[in-house]
Amino acid sequence: MDKPDIKAYIEQLGRQARKASRVLASVKSETKNLALSKIGEALDRRRGLLVEENRKDLEAGRRNNLDAPLLDRLQLTGKGIQAMIDGLTEISSLPDPVGAITDLNYRPSGIQVGRMRVPLGVIGIIYESRPNVTAEAAALCLKSGNACILRGGSEAIHSNRAIADCIRAGLSEASLPESCIQVVQVTDRAAVGELIRMDAYVDVIVPRGGKGLIERIARESRIPVIKHLDGICHVFIDDRADLGMAAEIALNAKTQRYGTCNTMETLLIAERVAKTVLPDLAARFLEKGVELRGCARTRELVAACKEATEQDWMTEYLAPILSIRIVDGIDEAIEHINTYGSAHTDAIVTEDYSRARRFLREVDSSSVMVNVSTRFADGFEYGLGAEIGISTDKLHARGPVGLEGLTSVKFIVLGDGQMRT
Amino acid sequence: MDKPDIKAYIEQLGRQARKASRVLASVKSETKNLALSKIGEALDRRRGLLVEENRKDLEAGRRNNLDAPLLDRLQLTGKGIQAMIDGLTEISSLPDPVGAITDLNYRPSGIQVGRMRVPLGVIGIIYESRPNVTAEAAALCLKSGNACILRGGSEAIHSNRAIADCIRAGLSEASLPESCIQVVQVTDRAAVGELIRMDAYVDVIVPRGGKGLIERIARESRIPVIKHLDGICHVFIDDRADLGMAAEIALNAKTQRYGTCNTMETLLIAERVAKTVLPDLAARFLEKGVELRGCARTRELVAACKEATEQDWMTEYLAPILSIRIVDGIDEAIEHINTYGSAHTDAIVTEDYSRARRFLREVDSSSVMVNVSTRFADGFEYGLGAEIGISTDKLHARGPVGLEGLTSVKFIVLGDGQMRT
Repeated sequence: MDKPDIKAYIEQLGRQARKASRVLASVKSETKNLALSKIGEALDRRRGLLVEENRKDLEAGRRNNLDAPLLDRLQLTGKGIQAMIDGLTEISSLPDPVGAITDLNYRPSGIQVGRMRVPLGVIGIIYESRPNVTAEAAALCLKSGNACILRGGSEAIHSNRAIADCIRAGLSEASLPESCIQVVQVTDRAAVGELIRMDAYVDVIVPRGGKGLIERIARESRIPVIKHLDGICHVFIDDRADLGMAAEIALNAKTQRYGTCNTMETLLIAERVAKTVLPDLAARFLEKGVELRGCARTRELVAACKEATEQDWMTEYLAPILSIRIVDGIDEAIEHINTYGSAHTDAIVTEDYSRARRFLREVDSSSVMVNVSTRFADGFEYGLGAEIGISTDKLHARGPVGLEGLTSVKFIVLGDGQMRT
Repeated sequence: MDKPDIKAYIEQLGRQARKASRVLASVKSETKNLALSKIGEALDRRRGLLVEENRKDLEAGRRNNLDAPLLDRLQLTGKGIQAMIDGLTEISSLPDPVGAITDLNYRPSGIQVGRMRVPLGVIGIIYESRPNVTAEAAALCLKSGNACILRGGSEAIHSNRAIADCIRAGLSEASLPESCIQVVQVTDRAAVGELIRMDAYVDVIVPRGGKGLIERIARESRIPVIKHLDGICHVFIDDRADLGMAAEIALNAKTQRYGTCNTMETLLIAERVAKTVLPDLAARFLEKGVELRGCARTRELVAACKEATEQDWMTEYLAPILSIRIVDGIDEAIEHINTYGSAHTDAIVTEDYSRARRFLREVDSSSVMVNVSTRFADGFEYGLGAEIGISTDKLHARGPVGLEGLTSVKFIVLGDGQMRT
C-alpha cells in the first residue's frame, strides 16, 4: 500500500473500532466471557497452523539476521500457545469492572450523585516481537469493554494474522462485532504514525516494548499514552534494619531476575551499618557474578568494587550490574531516590516506625515498599489479576495497570425533578 | 525580555516549583490551611492596593478597546475581593486528600498492598482575564499539595501581581517556600509556549478559558492537559416521562443561565408525546426570548420554530437559542447524543425503570442524569467542595474536577521480609 492508502486503511479500522466500542460498552459480562473462551477454543483447534505461520516469521527473522533474544521472543511453542489459552481463561474469571457504581450519595439538594465505571472506548496497542501479546492485550481490552486496534511488530506478522483469525472466529461465535478487536494487517511503519494521530477514533495508546519505542510514540502521539519507561529501582538499608532480612531482600531484588523493570539497580546503605553489612553482602553479589560499582565510601569497604560515575545512578542496567552508595541516613536516601530514580519502585528496609512512615510518604514513586523485595511490583502480586503494563506516568494510571486502568468513571445523577435555583 | 531570557526565566520558575513540590508533598494539613488563611488576611489588608492596581488594568483595557464583557470579567470590586477571601476559607475547610490510604489488603504472599493518595507535583494553570482565578487556583493547588505556576492574561497583569504579593506574604507567614505558588511576571506570549513544553518540571497543565485557548494549548503542549471543551448538553423527554416535570426540567436546563457549559443546547422529545408537550413548552421558551431551531417534525408543531441545520446539533450556543429534535424513542435519542453531543452532561426525563438504567449505562458523557436539570453538573452540587474545571477528557479526571482530580495514587506495600520466588 502507498501512504494515502495506509491512512485510509487505518481510518477505516478507527471508524469500525469506534462503532464496535459503542456496542461493547453495554454488552453483558457473560457475552464477553463467552467470546474469551471461544477465542481460546479457536487457538486450541489451530495449534498446528499457528506453529506453521510462526515458522514463516522465524525463517524470515533468521534471513534478516535478527539476534537470538529477539528470535526467542518471536517463537511460538506449544507451551507458549497453552499459556495464551490459559491467560484467556484467567482474564475471563476476573470480575467485570464495567458498570460498577460507587459513592452514590444524597446531596443537600435532594439529588443522588455517584460514579459509574465505564470503558475508555478505543485502545491502540503497539508492541514488538512477542506474538502472545496479541491474545493477551486483546483479552484485557475486551474484558474491560474497550474496542482495540493491535499493531504488532512486522517480524511477527504471520503469527499475528493467524492469531487474529482465531480472535475473529471467537468474537463471531459469541455474536460480537469482529471489529471489537482488529489486528493491523499491514507491516508498513506508516501505519503506526497514522494510528497515534487518529484522535477522533482512538482514546488511549498503550505501547509495549523497549524505552526507545515508548519514547518515540509518546513524543509523536496526539493521543494520551500510558507509558512504561525506566525502572531504576532502589533498596535502602536503614541503620535500624533487621540486617539479615536486609541482605536477603537486597539479594532477591537484584538477582532473582536481572532483566525486569522492578529489579533493583541501586543499593543505598546507611553509613552506620555499612561496615557490618556490606563486605559480606558484596561477596555474595560477586559470587553470583554481579558487577559492583560504588561510591568512594563503598570502595573503601569492598576492594572488588569499581567506581560508580554520576551516570551509574541514572542507569537501568537490566543486567548483573549493581551500583552501591553509602548515605548518611534516610534524608540522603530519599533525596537520592527522588533525584536519580525513575519513580518506579523503591523499598526501605527498617524496623523504625517513623522512618517507615516517612519513606512511604516522601518517596515519589509508583510503588513504595517497606521490608519487601522490589520484585513484588507486579499486577498479579498486587491482586489486579492481570497487567497490561506498569505505568510510570502520574496521571490516570500509576504503577501496575490492570483492567481498572483501562476504564474511567463518569458521574451519574438521579433525581425527581430537581431544578437549579 | 527577549526569547532566550523568557525561556531561562520560565525554567527557573519550573526548577523552583519542582523543589517546592517536594516540600509541599509532605507538609501537614494545618500548615497548608494556615497559609490559606494568611493569604486571605493579606488580601483583606491590601484591599485598597488591589483596587488601585486593578484600575491600571481597566484603564489599559479601555485604551486597548477591550469589549465590555471582558472588562467586566477583569474588574475587581470590593465584593469580588470578599468572594476571593471567602473562597480561601472554604477551600481551607475541605478535607485534605493527600496521604489517604485505601484498599490496604493482605495478599497470598503475605504482603499488604494499598493505595496512597499523593499530589501530582507541579501544576501549570493558564487562564484569561479574571484575576480572582489567581487566588482560587492557587488555593486548590496548595490544598492538594501541588506547587503551581500561574499564568494569567496579560490584560490583568497589575491585578495578578498585587494578588501574587499577598500570596507570597501568606506563604511566608506559614513558613512555606514562596515558590509553592509562582505567578508568571512577564506578559509576553512566549512564556506560555515555554511553560507548556517544560515537561521536566511541570506534571499537568490546566487551561481555563475559551475553547480556542484550550484547543491551542492541548495541541501544542508536551505535558498532559486537563481539558474543558464544549458543553453540548441534551435533555431527552421520554414518552413515559412525567410531562409536567419534563417541561420544568427543560426550562430550567436552558433558561436558568444561558452562558454556562452545563446549559442544555438541544432538546430531544419522544414522538409519542411531542404533540402534547411541545406547543406549550415552545411558547414558554419563546416568551423568555429563546430562539427555537427545530427538525421538520418540530416545525410542524411549532410555527415560530426556525429550521435547524446539521450544524445546529453540533453547536454550543451559550446563548438564548435552543435546537429541538423529535426522535422515535430512546434508541434514537442515545444515538443522537453519542453522535452530536460533546460527552459533557446529558439527562433523560422518564418514569420508566429500564430506560433510565439503559440511558445511564449507554450515554457516554461525563455526567449522565435522570429526572434532573443538566445545570446540576457542578463541583459544588456534586459535593466536591470546589472545582478547578469540568473535564471533558476520559483519562484521569472526568466531569467536575475538585481536589481529588489534582492528585494521583501510588501503591504502598508493607511486608516483613517477603522475597519473590
